[in-house]
Amino acid sequence: MADKVLIYSRFPKTMMTRFAEAFELLDTAGKSAHEVFPAEIANVRAMLTAGGTPLGAAEMDRFPKLGAIVCYGTGYDGVDLKAAAARNIAVGHSPGANAASVADIAMTLMLATTRRILVADQYVRSGDWAGSKQSPLMRPQAGMPSRRIGVYGMGEIGRKIAVRCAAFESEVGYFSRSRHDVPYQYFPTLEALADWCSVLMVAVRASEETNHLVNADILKRLGADGYVVNISRGSVIDEAALVAALSDGTIAGAGLDVYAREPHAPDALTALPNVVLSPHIGGHTLDSHVAMQNCVLANLTAFFGGKPLPYAVREGGKSS
Amino acid sequence: MADKVLIYSRFPKTMMTRFAEAFELLDTAGKSAHEVFPAEIANVRAMLTAGGTPLGAAEMDRFPKLGAIVCYGTGYDGVDLKAAAARNIAVGHSPGANAASVADIAMTLMLATTRRILVADQYVRSGDWAGSKQSPLMRPQAGMPSRRIGVYGMGEIGRKIAVRCAAFESEVGYFSRSRHDVPYQYFPTLEALADWCSVLMVAVRASEETNHLVNADILKRLGADGYVVNISRGSVIDEAALVAALSDGTIAGAGLDVYAREPHAPDALTALPNVVLSPHIGGHTLDSHVAMQNCVLANLTAFFGGKPLPYAVREGGKSS
Repeated sequence: MADKVLIYSRFPKTMMTRFAEAFELLDTAGKSAHEVFPAEIANVRAMLTAGGTPLGAAEMDRFPKLGAIVCYGTGYDGVDLKAAAARNIAVGHSPGANAASVADIAMTLMLATTRRILVADQYVRSGDWAGSKQSPLMRPQAGMPSRRIGVYGMGEIGRKIAVRCAAFESEVGYFSRSRHDVPYQYFPTLEALADWCSVLMVAVRASEETNHLVNADILKRLGADGYVVNISRGSVIDEAALVAALSDGTIAGAGLDVYAREPHAPDALTALPNVVLSPHIGGHTLDSHVAMQNCVLANLTAFFGGKPLPYAVREGGKSS
Repeated sequence: MADKVLIYSRFPKTMMTRFAEAFELLDTAGKSAHEVFPAEIANVRAMLTAGGTPLGAAEMDRFPKLGAIVCYGTGYDGVDLKAAAARNIAVGHSPGANAASVADIAMTLMLATTRRILVADQYVRSGDWAGSKQSPLMRPQAGMPSRRIGVYGMGEIGRKIAVRCAAFESEVGYFSRSRHDVPYQYFPTLEALADWCSVLMVAVRASEETNHLVNADILKRLGADGYVVNISRGSVIDEAALVAALSDGTIAGAGLDVYAREPHAPDALTALPNVVLSPHIGGHTLDSHVAMQNCVLANLTAFFGGKPLPYAVREGGKSS
């Protein structure tokens, strides 16, 4: 009989296909497991969740035999790690599996925002170009070789962003909790990085410590030619301060893949012309899904085989 | 008295500011010089033009003292070089000055197209994401590390595109008239490159020889997962074949900065959801304009000083 895995978050069925070949899946479709599978609760040993889905001590206590929480993706910010450790529940994720894909959406958002590709596309499609209409948003902007890119967080995603930016002939600097062995200028504080750079790439792992660290003060330091790109978690940026800074010209623009309350993006944000918005698709490539699924399968297989998770969350170890 | 320079093409006044400090400008605003400045025609020795503006033998003969045609930008495809040489008219341009800027718009268009950023942005802004609506265009696509990028043309722009793509962990191949000393796989024909790659980056210098070289056959070789990005000239691609291939699923998408009849983009093209279109803004960054203006100033200053143009067009020498 196949081992049973509770699908705790809501995932598209197509993403579950490979897991269904190896395990019996109890798919809650994002609903309450206690309502959908009341008879199974007492025996649930492993669950698959999305890292951002809240999963605290009280919820863990509702699954008496729970031994493994496996996150699909690199994030695990929704999981109360201390509560899990106290209950001897292993927590796994997919470290690095989506790093290239996420770094690429960061670059996509940066380029699309700084080169104003939404405005440009509309300028062509509307016939304004053919009609020689003026568009203030189409004025030439600084190019990549004259930009200073500040990377906040130097984990696997941050490193890949830095490598890509360097290939664009941009100057690259970074801030993270500690200095890394990388060929980029280190800034000891986020404030210093924001003073120096014109594009801030937020690639730090989200946690309580990083909550709203990108605030009105940091945005002001970026300046009127400054941009913010966030592919981490919405919680890292004070979203209200960001909307204000984008609206009053404190900064020039933003490219965002993540939001404070997903899947909702504030109306004040979606009304802005100087932002490019994507629906948390950073890790959303075929390559990345295969790599993340490999981690999930390895974690679940090890767990049911009585072995430690090969891709376990090591609190404090994997952050930037 | 300042030397006089005829501004032959239509340029924004802001782009002419630095030239006006050094020369007396006769700005036709894109109109007929013979109508706007009839009294000056006989004495025009130098003109500033856009490389794509047609300038043939008959037109050259209308300026009896013409000695220098200076193109703003790297292109000079509108200028009849043989006719100029026969009349002892020097032709100058701005080689490489906008290479980074153009390579960057190529990357912007490739990423925006393959990651479907227009669809993604609309998905967020429309509320479809918040409403959990399905969108077929939002299905995961191949990521950069699993892509093969084919660069057509290995001049300065092609090289910069290749360096950038390599930083994205993509496999890079190229076709050009001759093999270059670059660390990418060489393909001896455009057909072979198209068979191999999934994204074709058109960076070849436009000429009569390259006219419509990217045709229905090449597009078919790219295949249903294939993309075309063109930052060269519209003439290199058979635009009708491209629209057909984009419409019937022969290829997956395209990112275009250039068109067959600028500033017009065909209605059949602007109606497509699987394209990202920009209004020939490849060289349109502040850095790039400064660098191009430096070349223009150096060319004009040398010419009026009786010296050879430092940035002369060397036919056959600078192409890929």
